[in-house]
Amino acid sequence: MTVHNLLTNLPACAANSAERIDELLSRPGLRVERIVSTGQASPSGFWYDQAEGEWVVLLSGAAGLRFEHEDYTRLLAPGDCLDIPAHYRHRVEWTAPGTATIWLAVFYSSVSPWPA
Amino acid sequence: MTVHNLLTNLPACAANSAERIDELLSRPGLRVERIVSTGQASPSGFWYDQAEGEWVVLLSGAAGLRFEHEDYTRLLAPGDCLDIPAHYRHRVEWTAPGTATIWLAVFYSSVSPWPA
Repeated sequence: MTVHNLLTNLPACAANSAERIDELLSRPGLRVERIVSTGQASPSGFWYDQAEGEWVVLLSGAAGLRFEHEDYTRLLAPGDCLDIPAHYRHRVEWTAPGTATIWLAVFYSSVSPWPA
Repeated sequence: MTVHNLLTNLPACAANSAERIDELLSRPGLRVERIVSTGQASPSGFWYDQAEGEWVVLLSGAAGLRFEHEDYTRLLAPGDCLDIPAHYRHRVEWTAPGTATIWLAVFYSSVSPWPA
């Protein structure tokens, strides 16, 4: 029984490095991840198109989240959460520079993860 | 696509009222809840014995968490997270008085939620 802290052990703040992803839990049809952004954004023209649903909450920092079917960018602040259904195309327009934007993401299957 | 904020819309701080539970996501074999404690503790002698696994993170406040198979109480601070397997008997010894202790809990089935 190990306790981890999601707000510590953060990467250095550099927008030109990759986001840091830590898997916190993995079960059939379920995966919980901490994702730490330090100024990164989705590449120009790129849209996430995920086979899994993603329930996500911002724990620190700030981010601009855009959905393809919407014509505006949503500002996410600490505590903000939402459910992104599978195949809802979206992109991260920006994350706050010079600080850690911490996402907690719960990915879940929309089909049974167990063999019939 | 609705954004909620987990750190706002909190109940008044009263230890003699019930904890507040908000269901954030419900899918087969998966349930995400926000639980807000304001000084409550598990009743004397009571142990949670859950059929589901529970991955949980403390978002604010403080709590003392005790497992039956351990002889000490764990202090949980904001950002602390852990996975409580199904049937790991545990209890909340205390939560911070006079403030909101916000838990984010991911409950997951250890058996297939889909019919065979």
